[in-house]
Amino acid sequence: MVRWAPGSRERLQAAALEAFVERGFESVTVAEIAASVGLTERTFFRYFPDKREVLFHGQETLEAAFVDGIRDAPADASTADVLRHALRAATEWWFPEERRAFARARSGIIAQDPALLERELAKMRNLSAALGTALEERGVSPVRARLAAETATTVFHVAFGQWIATDDEKSLADIIDALLGELGDVFGPRS
Amino acid sequence: MVRWAPGSRERLQAAALEAFVERGFESVTVAEIAASVGLTERTFFRYFPDKREVLFHGQETLEAAFVDGIRDAPADASTADVLRHALRAATEWWFPEERRAFARARSGIIAQDPALLERELAKMRNLSAALGTALEERGVSPVRARLAAETATTVFHVAFGQWIATDDEKSLADIIDALLGELGDVFGPRS
Repeated sequence: MVRWAPGSRERLQAAALEAFVERGFESVTVAEIAASVGLTERTFFRYFPDKREVLFHGQETLEAAFVDGIRDAPADASTADVLRHALRAATEWWFPEERRAFARARSGIIAQDPALLERELAKMRNLSAALGTALEERGVSPVRARLAAETATTVFHVAFGQWIATDDEKSLADIIDALLGELGDVFGPRS
Repeated sequence: MVRWAPGSRERLQAAALEAFVERGFESVTVAEIAASVGLTERTFFRYFPDKREVLFHGQETLEAAFVDGIRDAPADASTADVLRHALRAATEWWFPEERRAFARARSGIIAQDPALLERELAKMRNLSAALGTALEERGVSPVRARLAAETATTVFHVAFGQWIATDDEKSLADIIDALLGELGDVFGPRS
């Protein structure tokens, strides 16, 4: 199964990102993005409601993948194992190696624009809230669900930063596993 | 030692907050805030550079208190104990019981205004970065320092939300301790 098939949407995203990197998010117009891949502005708007959405399209689906990962975990799995399972399932699907360069460029663009950064952070808050709700649905207490969901989001965020900072061979899912291990070492029960 | 002495700055903060709650942050002017406690606009600006700063004044000092807490911890303390020590020291000083109502009202105002919320989140990111640097100065590896600092900030954030949501007798420091315990239970080494 092809995970990253280059259809019109993906070509528009790739062209937009390249233009944003070269000339800055603000300077690039939708018409220019569309023209650079031989499409019209009208076609662009069939895929994205606005220019910002080029950078955020698909994130609801990523959130859904995390939530599905929580729901699909075995009924008797521990909260940590549920989150480990969900993080691995979602990131292996959404962040294969061939997306690393795109993810890196995208993060660079977002970091330079306060409005984009706020949108990105809002998505993280939504992700955290969705994970918390999914954990509660499994019977985890509200306080523990909230804490575990926020912590899992933090681990994802830190791991993602590491993943796009390098080109070494570790996958995002492997980095997440390593960080979950560190987390246990640091905060685990005192011996 | 008095921790929350009602000088002009504190009277201005209290009056501003009351006005923001009643009429909304945008609708209230600096002149009105000053007049409501018998002071001039000019005096207001001796204490705060702008209206927003009424809500954020003192946060650098809070960050410094966290960092001092990390530096002051015994040399042989574990990373978790260093953070536990720092979180307790800073929160006992900065968030005594008598600040709870203020903290709750402040959070309510901030949640309703995207620009204020962005500023609050930026302060959290700065806090996390400062904690990470302070841990690295103690010899903690960069990856572990970053993860531990982000997680401690997350615990603080979740605990703070719990503290202002209720009036039960648990102090913020006690809530933080309980959450650190939960964190160990959830993510600690598997048995």
